[in-house]
Amino acid sequence: MRTVRWDPDGPAVLMIDQRLLPADFQILTLTTAAEVAQAIQDMAVRGAPAIGVSAAFGLALAAVNSRTREVESLWQELETASSILRAARPTAVNLSWALDRLLQAAFELKGKGTEAIRECLVVEAQRMADEDVRINRRMAEHGAALIQDGATLIHHCNTGALATVDHGTALGVIRTAHEQGKRIHVLVDETRPRLQGARLTAWELAQYGIPHEVICDNAAGHFLSRGVVDAVLVGADRVAANGDVANKIGTYMLALAASDNQVPLYCVLPTSTIDLTLPSGEEIPIEFREAAEVLELQRDGKPIAPAGCQARNPAFDITPHRLVTAFVTEVGVLHPPYDVHLQRAVQEAQPK
Amino acid sequence: MRTVRWDPDGPAVLMIDQRLLPADFQILTLTTAAEVAQAIQDMAVRGAPAIGVSAAFGLALAAVNSRTREVESLWQELETASSILRAARPTAVNLSWALDRLLQAAFELKGKGTEAIRECLVVEAQRMADEDVRINRRMAEHGAALIQDGATLIHHCNTGALATVDHGTALGVIRTAHEQGKRIHVLVDETRPRLQGARLTAWELAQYGIPHEVICDNAAGHFLSRGVVDAVLVGADRVAANGDVANKIGTYMLALAASDNQVPLYCVLPTSTIDLTLPSGEEIPIEFREAAEVLELQRDGKPIAPAGCQARNPAFDITPHRLVTAFVTEVGVLHPPYDVHLQRAVQEAQPK
Repeated sequence: MRTVRWDPDGPAVLMIDQRLLPADFQILTLTTAAEVAQAIQDMAVRGAPAIGVSAAFGLALAAVNSRTREVESLWQELETASSILRAARPTAVNLSWALDRLLQAAFELKGKGTEAIRECLVVEAQRMADEDVRINRRMAEHGAALIQDGATLIHHCNTGALATVDHGTALGVIRTAHEQGKRIHVLVDETRPRLQGARLTAWELAQYGIPHEVICDNAAGHFLSRGVVDAVLVGADRVAANGDVANKIGTYMLALAASDNQVPLYCVLPTSTIDLTLPSGEEIPIEFREAAEVLELQRDGKPIAPAGCQARNPAFDITPHRLVTAFVTEVGVLHPPYDVHLQRAVQEAQPK
Repeated sequence: MRTVRWDPDGPAVLMIDQRLLPADFQILTLTTAAEVAQAIQDMAVRGAPAIGVSAAFGLALAAVNSRTREVESLWQELETASSILRAARPTAVNLSWALDRLLQAAFELKGKGTEAIRECLVVEAQRMADEDVRINRRMAEHGAALIQDGATLIHHCNTGALATVDHGTALGVIRTAHEQGKRIHVLVDETRPRLQGARLTAWELAQYGIPHEVICDNAAGHFLSRGVVDAVLVGADRVAANGDVANKIGTYMLALAASDNQVPLYCVLPTSTIDLTLPSGEEIPIEFREAAEVLELQRDGKPIAPAGCQARNPAFDITPHRLVTAFVTEVGVLHPPYDVHLQRAVQEAQPK
């Protein structure tokens, strides 16, 4: 099943509760925009493309749940819902991108009444979800061409079906390479603090039958320096106009270790993750999350550190563009100069 | 109390069981060399200097426990005990260094009978323990001169009193800087997989009253790139003749991030950690430990990854000497060229 989907009978947004994996597989049924925002905030759903589509469905819920027949009043409700959804997480730009796209589409129907707006939002959100799967497949085809038969890859965080609507970004590339018959071995960064690698990526790889081993994030440098790694694959939460990448915390140190050993690092993302309004990574907001994610390994109330200990917990870091060997997008593989090629890719990806 | 000490009434080796900290403070009483080897293997005691002294006390136990009055027979028992202790962990050279030093001292007394050898081993092991504390204090004085008032430092693993007989190496530097009245803030790498940072270093820093926050190892790069870190301090398990450093897994990636941001990295170690017999880090054996350390965060039988998942778990990595700003030893601060200065430091440290 898809990670996030629309249930027209609810109406509701259904999503896999990723906090419980791999121990439990449960589906959340969310019936308000506020519930969707909370699920994004709490990381029941995570991954830049997945939270973009979730927010879009959340906004559609707000429209469908509204009882008003006044366009201006509906518009007010949509703007409120949009603000709540937008504030759920600050770093991944897909969230704002998805909301802006839906609001723009609805705006053009303001003269046609509330029902037209409601229908448009549901249709547009659903289209976005379907597009995400198609885009991921295209990215995966482009990216798989970069992966040799017999390759050992390091993968950070989770960028699979669970981070998107289906198939995945960086993990989608690995999956497609595997489907093409290439023998792949994945060293799975566990990805502290939330362990998306050990919990989610290992779970997906097991389902796809792709050989893999979990490693501590700390250990990536060792394997890279021993010459046993052919490429590093990561996703992105936001890419600035110059190619600087905001991605899951630890990506920067991983990219340094790849670069120090002349191992290529591929960053796989839909063009919706590119934010041309920000000149560089310095302007990308970095979310800090609660200390308990660090101090309690499983957020189970059992601290690993002494009582009263403090922690700092940035959820993302910035990898400078000089450490990225290539970007893999739905419109193709992008090489430097990134300021030119990212802009061109965004233009190419625009619906004609 | 000291992390490791000799109890003449047992005779026994007493050590803090570091696996239980910070939740429990318990003292292990070990009465045979095999028990000491097991405690080293299981990481009840860890840290290069601490396991060196533990092994020395273990060999002294073997001597004292022996009932033989034949020198050759005692010697045979000592060699057996020494092999068991030496095999407990492969990377830290202090273990072999301590055993070789004791065997050398005992060898010179072979003509004087078994009692002389027994007494010598106990005295020499005790001397080594006392020396360790003095050496740490000297290192700390040299290192503290490099730390400015108001400094924010990143520290990896545990290199404190718990990693030595007392005071510590890299953490000893921080402690002495604090005792000198300098205001220090420590970002404590949690240090996966065994969490020596979150469990042990945070526990020590709280006792010394030094402000600190735990971070995921992944997050060090973020803080380094934001310009808020003044220096990175690490210990070492073995340093090759050219200055390549084997230290706790993750040190290499941390050193890359420090270097990429022009933040100095100081490696603090007694000269007994320098292994001039190995030309470079490539020849240093890297210990791989059990997968459960990665797959069960607290080794509590509760896996984080899907059932049947594999893991790879190197306990150390090699940091190339080009990433080390300076070595801090008991004979002073060493700058490049390290091949010259490390050899000189070892010579200077020899007992006259």
